[in-house]
Amino acid sequence: MIWLSYVAAFLTTFSFLPQAIKTIKTRDTIDLSLLTYCMFVIGTFTWTLYGLAIHETALFLANIVTTLLAGVILSFKVMDTIKENKKKSHR
Amino acid sequence: MIWLSYVAAFLTTFSFLPQAIKTIKTRDTIDLSLLTYCMFVIGTFTWTLYGLAIHETALFLANIVTTLLAGVILSFKVMDTIKENKKKSHR
Repeated sequence: MIWLSYVAAFLTTFSFLPQAIKTIKTRDTIDLSLLTYCMFVIGTFTWTLYGLAIHETALFLANIVTTLLAGVILSFKVMDTIKENKKKSHR
Repeated sequence: MIWLSYVAAFLTTFSFLPQAIKTIKTRDTIDLSLLTYCMFVIGTFTWTLYGLAIHETALFLANIVTTLLAGVILSFKVMDTIKENKKKSHR
């Protein structure tokens, strides 16, 4: 049954690659939830730290990849949110 | 260090709740990646099955919640994609 965990780990680890590519290309983040990406990035980063603390290489590696991918998406969302807030304050 | 895994599990499990609420409210999914949500839902569902197979209740419960939340977002994205494709074929 261990193969099932490899399939699951591969899918959940790399699932944010297409979203990161799409966001970098379009720079449109209006439909993305800021809170979702904040929670997700802090969550996967916490899993990374936990993997490091208990010396679980697979947990550490899978989550550092997801943290980086989701981090790219989050940074675009944050930049967009700041821009939107500036626009609103100038109205 | 086990508390670190509880924090991580809480954050990654419930992170898709704000995105699901946002998507249900706005029904806008253009900035969301279809491939990301396909991979993520299949991935978390595979983790759910793995949790069931190895009798890991926490793994099972965390992933069934995430599968349901991400599944809601995916279903809106799929409906939007079908609508968009119909529009295109009528042009």
